[in-house]
Amino acid sequence: MASTNEPSFQGWVALDEHSIGHLKWQSYEPKPWEETDVDIEITHCGICGSDLHTLRSGWGPTMYPAVVGHEIVGRAVRVGSQVKHVKVGDRVGVGAQSDSCLNRTTQCGDCSSGQENMCTNHGRCDTYNGVYLNGGKSYGGYGDYNRCPGHFVVKIPEGLDSADAAPMLCAGITTYAPLKNNGCGPGKRVGIIGVGGLGHFGILWAKAFGADRVVGISRREAKRANALQIGADDYIATADDENWLKKNAGTLDLIVCTISSSKMPLREYLGLLDTNGRMIQVGAPEGPLPTIMAFDFIPKGKSLGGSCIGPPWQIQEMLDFAAKKGIKPWVEKRSMKDVNATLIDMEKELARYRYVLVNESHV
Amino acid sequence: MASTNEPSFQGWVALDEHSIGHLKWQSYEPKPWEETDVDIEITHCGICGSDLHTLRSGWGPTMYPAVVGHEIVGRAVRVGSQVKHVKVGDRVGVGAQSDSCLNRTTQCGDCSSGQENMCTNHGRCDTYNGVYLNGGKSYGGYGDYNRCPGHFVVKIPEGLDSADAAPMLCAGITTYAPLKNNGCGPGKRVGIIGVGGLGHFGILWAKAFGADRVVGISRREAKRANALQIGADDYIATADDENWLKKNAGTLDLIVCTISSSKMPLREYLGLLDTNGRMIQVGAPEGPLPTIMAFDFIPKGKSLGGSCIGPPWQIQEMLDFAAKKGIKPWVEKRSMKDVNATLIDMEKELARYRYVLVNESHV
Repeated sequence: MASTNEPSFQGWVALDEHSIGHLKWQSYEPKPWEETDVDIEITHCGICGSDLHTLRSGWGPTMYPAVVGHEIVGRAVRVGSQVKHVKVGDRVGVGAQSDSCLNRTTQCGDCSSGQENMCTNHGRCDTYNGVYLNGGKSYGGYGDYNRCPGHFVVKIPEGLDSADAAPMLCAGITTYAPLKNNGCGPGKRVGIIGVGGLGHFGILWAKAFGADRVVGISRREAKRANALQIGADDYIATADDENWLKKNAGTLDLIVCTISSSKMPLREYLGLLDTNGRMIQVGAPEGPLPTIMAFDFIPKGKSLGGSCIGPPWQIQEMLDFAAKKGIKPWVEKRSMKDVNATLIDMEKELARYRYVLVNESHV
Repeated sequence: MASTNEPSFQGWVALDEHSIGHLKWQSYEPKPWEETDVDIEITHCGICGSDLHTLRSGWGPTMYPAVVGHEIVGRAVRVGSQVKHVKVGDRVGVGAQSDSCLNRTTQCGDCSSGQENMCTNHGRCDTYNGVYLNGGKSYGGYGDYNRCPGHFVVKIPEGLDSADAAPMLCAGITTYAPLKNNGCGPGKRVGIIGVGGLGHFGILWAKAFGADRVVGISRREAKRANALQIGADDYIATADDENWLKKNAGTLDLIVCTISSSKMPLREYLGLLDTNGRMIQVGAPEGPLPTIMAFDFIPKGKSLGGSCIGPPWQIQEMLDFAAKKGIKPWVEKRSMKDVNATLIDMEKELARYRYVLVNESHV
């Protein structure tokens, strides 16, 4: 055992589905320690839309008491003897997923091929509101410490600010992976639908990958200036320009759609694609997708796909890429003490474009 | 000009939307000759589902009088001076598309990159019920002769029977292209939904490409024996086995769906896919696709795409591949004189699995 000090697990706890703005600072019981685990002394935690869904039981009943937050950065203070890539004192992070079956319960094609993010077998566990194989519950990063399996812990590279790294662990990888996996780079014209926590990362990555042209797409003209400042080459306001589709039909090769609404104009988005164009959906509305026709896909060989975070090796790749390229997300730091007020601001969509809670006792 | 004899253009003409079973043998006026054209003395023409849609104005108003049929094989009897790859006497064919813009009306990314099948610019013309750039109408293969632009004429390789080659020109390429373009071969588990004119080709190609496992999927158990005889390794009867999805979830990497119905169980079909699995839709229902959820795609990174026939070079590749591999489709030959009775049988879904009309005066 590299270290034996047992931290005191306390955090901002949700007790029921009315807890947005009403989290209580309390102790909780982390998962029973295993020698494959790492304890992280949390310095930063981003606020993700998923946190709100979970706090209000929007994606099904939450197992209260719950601590949310899955964009966690801090220092490793206890490292299991079977964890080889991290040592006590390292600056580390963990994202939305903290465990997968890793072939312990099933022969798993995903875990055997570096696609742990695709694993849906017994043993998969989200960073909060989940249950580990050893029976312990998972608690997220709105608190002092996080305990999680070391396999899902990544190292924060030098030169990358902790507050910038935190939101990359979920919002970042959610947009990085579909762009990277679908060939974003020179020769590609790329659209990012939704200019928010996820979408602003999409613009940053697409530019850094060297796409020929990156277009921010959102409803209102009001976000144009920000989108261009983030790095977009152009901008489409779908609610404020009635000719937006006619003007832009067939002009994109790859779209990443971060919108989570059953009312989005999906057929029209597909109309933006050129031959063999792909649209990858990463926003997950609770209801069905809007109606589509086979003819939206067939004549130009288009496709609609989905993407879900990324495996640990790709999160590490992304962080190293971000450090190398000097990627600078738009982050607003808030004291973790002010989490309740910050969640209310988040719900009002005031974030430009990601709130990061700072645990001042650990900075 | 390689030849100047003007053939007599006569065929089985549809005069209105009630013409299934009531086609009349009549003369018609082909497109005005250009030196880029080829006249084909028709020996064989397959009957495609599209023919029925068009005869009854099911895909919008048809320009009567019309001659349908776009799986045409015969002999080149007149070859324009600008056509270099075909000479008089060659055994040739033409499929569902007989012209594209070829950069004559627009700077076309599709025509410039060997994707003429994706071209939707002015100048694209279907083999029947279309209008060529020179103002002539297009008439299909239920007749004595076909005149069409040589760019879309392919050569029938030695060793491939004309009656077998004919249905490959539409049904064949419609399934060959999505399998080939999506990596069908060793290591892939492939499903073909619908065991009919298109689907039986899908099974033949997938086996010939060397897929690890090919599964025929249709509603009724009754087609199992045929599917296995065609070459499928397994079969799923979605209407006769209530546990079909549970038993087969996540077992396929690639699906080609030939079903043209707004009532197909699309979400369940997507459930058959494993991680990164792709479903390619080639059947085109007139109504919307069934409702789907973002969660059908996101967790396992699946996608749904479309595919539309193939460019001339790929049709040629397919024919050469078929000759080399000895691909033997299930064809029922009927005399072209019996076209009206055969169309009625086709409408009753009696084809096993493709009717090919034989023009006995030219065989």
